[in-house]
Amino acid sequence: MSEAATRRRGRTGGGGAARRAERSTVSIETARFIERNIPNLEILNAEALDIIETNAETVLEEIGVNFVNNEAALQRWRDAGADVQGERVRIPRGLARELIKTAPSQFTQHARNPDKSVEIGGKNLVLAPVYGPPFVHDMEKGRRYATMDDFRNFVKLGHMSKWLHHSGGTVCEPTDIPVNKRHLDMLQAHMTLTDKPFMGSVTDPSRAVDSVEMCKLLFGADFVDQNTVMTSLININSPLTFDDVMMGALEVYAANNQAAIISPFIVGGAMAPVSVAGTLTQVLAEVLAGVAYSQLVRKGAPVIFGAFVTSIDMNSGAPTFGTPEASQITYGAGQLARRLGLPYRSAGSFCGSKLPDAQAAYETANSLNMGLLSGVNFMLHSCGWLEGGLVSSYEKFVLDADQLGALHQLARGVSIDAEHQAMDAIREVGPGGHYLGCGHTQRNFKTSFWRSEVLDYKPFETWYEEGARDSATLASEKVRRKLDSYVPPAMDVAVSEAINEFVSKRKSEMSDAFS
Amino acid sequence: MSEAATRRRGRTGGGGAARRAERSTVSIETARFIERNIPNLEILNAEALDIIETNAETVLEEIGVNFVNNEAALQRWRDAGADVQGERVRIPRGLARELIKTAPSQFTQHARNPDKSVEIGGKNLVLAPVYGPPFVHDMEKGRRYATMDDFRNFVKLGHMSKWLHHSGGTVCEPTDIPVNKRHLDMLQAHMTLTDKPFMGSVTDPSRAVDSVEMCKLLFGADFVDQNTVMTSLININSPLTFDDVMMGALEVYAANNQAAIISPFIVGGAMAPVSVAGTLTQVLAEVLAGVAYSQLVRKGAPVIFGAFVTSIDMNSGAPTFGTPEASQITYGAGQLARRLGLPYRSAGSFCGSKLPDAQAAYETANSLNMGLLSGVNFMLHSCGWLEGGLVSSYEKFVLDADQLGALHQLARGVSIDAEHQAMDAIREVGPGGHYLGCGHTQRNFKTSFWRSEVLDYKPFETWYEEGARDSATLASEKVRRKLDSYVPPAMDVAVSEAINEFVSKRKSEMSDAFS
Repeated sequence: MSEAATRRRGRTGGGGAARRAERSTVSIETARFIERNIPNLEILNAEALDIIETNAETVLEEIGVNFVNNEAALQRWRDAGADVQGERVRIPRGLARELIKTAPSQFTQHARNPDKSVEIGGKNLVLAPVYGPPFVHDMEKGRRYATMDDFRNFVKLGHMSKWLHHSGGTVCEPTDIPVNKRHLDMLQAHMTLTDKPFMGSVTDPSRAVDSVEMCKLLFGADFVDQNTVMTSLININSPLTFDDVMMGALEVYAANNQAAIISPFIVGGAMAPVSVAGTLTQVLAEVLAGVAYSQLVRKGAPVIFGAFVTSIDMNSGAPTFGTPEASQITYGAGQLARRLGLPYRSAGSFCGSKLPDAQAAYETANSLNMGLLSGVNFMLHSCGWLEGGLVSSYEKFVLDADQLGALHQLARGVSIDAEHQAMDAIREVGPGGHYLGCGHTQRNFKTSFWRSEVLDYKPFETWYEEGARDSATLASEKVRRKLDSYVPPAMDVAVSEAINEFVSKRKSEMSDAFS
Repeated sequence: MSEAATRRRGRTGGGGAARRAERSTVSIETARFIERNIPNLEILNAEALDIIETNAETVLEEIGVNFVNNEAALQRWRDAGADVQGERVRIPRGLARELIKTAPSQFTQHARNPDKSVEIGGKNLVLAPVYGPPFVHDMEKGRRYATMDDFRNFVKLGHMSKWLHHSGGTVCEPTDIPVNKRHLDMLQAHMTLTDKPFMGSVTDPSRAVDSVEMCKLLFGADFVDQNTVMTSLININSPLTFDDVMMGALEVYAANNQAAIISPFIVGGAMAPVSVAGTLTQVLAEVLAGVAYSQLVRKGAPVIFGAFVTSIDMNSGAPTFGTPEASQITYGAGQLARRLGLPYRSAGSFCGSKLPDAQAAYETANSLNMGLLSGVNFMLHSCGWLEGGLVSSYEKFVLDADQLGALHQLARGVSIDAEHQAMDAIREVGPGGHYLGCGHTQRNFKTSFWRSEVLDYKPFETWYEEGARDSATLASEKVRRKLDSYVPPAMDVAVSEAINEFVSKRKSEMSDAFS
């Protein structure tokens, strides 16, 4: 942190203070990333883990993976000793595992506000919002295509959320901006509307290059060269396929020492076997191949073991969320990631519901709890996800983000020092007494219990007189209050102008593309 | 099971078949109680457990507990070696722990349908519905005082729920029946409207006697003498107080070898210290004293280590549910119960919400997941709880009971046999393929994924055309369909008549009492 602070001072230089924006800064409290002081739940025994690991090597060796339309990748694999025939890469037993040894087990992703930099790996959990939905929903206007205004609103809500450590990436798809220009506006929003860390573009290698260039303007070129300032999402086309677009983006990020989540994207029963053990085998094979490839591009490039896994409803074919099979896979994949010594990404505010109702909350709470207890280090989608990821929900963003506070408190574990043993309180109160007024309670009540900032704790009568509002209604009001009170974080005017110029210049070089 | 089946045949005797009701039996599938094949989450380390256990003994020895208005109990304690002064019982270090050694670590609670008997203890989890609310709520008629009709409806819903193993006790308070007669109607409903196991009355020792007498009619007197056919809820008046009503009921049940949950009832910050470690200390001290007392009444009487714990909102004074502190206490108490070798009761569908909305579901899912992973053996309140336990909700009963299916599936753990390894499927499908049609999927999809029977998995367009129903609306419709299709389980007419006669006779001996 002190190093980063020095870096910031150095970059803004002697005249930096003079060029600073005059905007008053408003204190937005952001919690430090979670450092777990509780154990993980280990649902697979050693024998099961061994079998899955052996089978994953068999998959890589016998079946192999496809690197599509990517001759450079095939050549890298040939040079590394793999058996390459056409686009199929068969990786000898043990090779991928050997190659990934250079990937770090933990890394720092820097934010422009060094207090908000995050450590990804170890016992840490970094929370980032929903990623990717083409639609948004709020209780007033319903479901509609997402726009850049929506995107900015979600970045603002994320900035103001105490429990979100990370601004994420495509918090919704700004469908009113041409596809080839979106990434510029999205990155500019993350860079200017918040000072939390963020993700880069992956929809084309050239957009990854733009992301790196914009980061050089924000952080300084030397700093970006030597530090990780983006964590981006590289999905694998499960089963066992690595397409040129995603690999092209990965190549850019790895070459620039920027972090990538290497993530199988699996609806169990469709893109992987209809069994937990089979899905885990495929996930492990895919991650091994993808992470090994990242290290072929640049040894030491920071990567995350990703697992986006849901199950399918065999009646309707729809993906389902918050289900027990997804939990089992998430727990198991966490164990596999830890055995590889890689940071782990999984879980999120998953649900299939169309509304921020009871279904949404059951499924989400199942997923969030399982994410905490499975040892996830980077949780994308940790708030705002609705309708199987098709929709970013304003109300659910606020409701979920509030629940993330409960994860922080649960992860703190149980303090057992003399003050928390509270023997003085038990002695003072005695049988039949009352603790509300005792000294121990007075000393500790402010720090003892987590409290929701959006849910209702009022007596029935008060709640009824105030309009008998359900959670979605309470959340709507919270969204409005938050957006109305938003103030951007202070920013060096010269930096923000440089970013703006870059975006304008790049846009002027492109024609509009909407697909 | 075969022993119980023999018992039933024996009781109905030679003419039994002829006297059987002619009602057709409808097959209501009930899942077997959960046998966990996954580990528990152990959040306290050995040092913390040792400190809490040592402190609990200090509480018993130094501070002691009050047995109120109960000279027989005080005499039992004197005889056992405790220091009794007035109503205060100080228990020498180690004595309670020694006394509880005769309590069984696991016991069978028999149902009148022997297929539905449950094993309480070990790795098992038995699920029972909400207990105690004076109000009911449904989306159509709103919140109102509960009646005996509501009570019967909830027993019917419980009977028809695949995932509920137990019919519970006071599923709501039938406020239209005089207080002194309620237990008779409630027990009759559990005995006739379902064939799942149930709980006895605890609101007065005489009502516990009635409960035992009615069970003798249902199961046969000899059978009741030798077997456990009720598990009843004995709350401790925390802090550290054992009142004469609850202890009187416990004395009846223990003397008759019927099971009791010995359960501190704690709103943290009010009835226990405002810290997790302090609350756990008090819970352990209270359970040690209560369980030890049960063994003074009758060695070997089956008892359960109970912990009903929630936290308080220090802003409003309201109890809060599904909070991280309650989870920590529940995890920790599970560890303490296992170290004592006692079955453990905790968790449930806890929430503070006034409606079956997102708040209700977040808080409930937090509590249910934590209950499964903390090693709970008997989960009262596992469905239907609303508004801090003041309300039994029809819709939430159905929504929660559906979620209990996910707990079953999660607890099954991960199969690692050759079929579940699915290597044939991965080989068959290969890179870029699709699993939906492969042989492995066809063989396994019916048994692979848990599926909700009330939540919505439809595409947005279908859902919208069908009325854009939220979870509460879907649940309302499910409640109506279930109640409309209810058919009582077959029952020996002579037994049901005997129960009816007993209820009528006992009622005729009482005047109405409404408080």
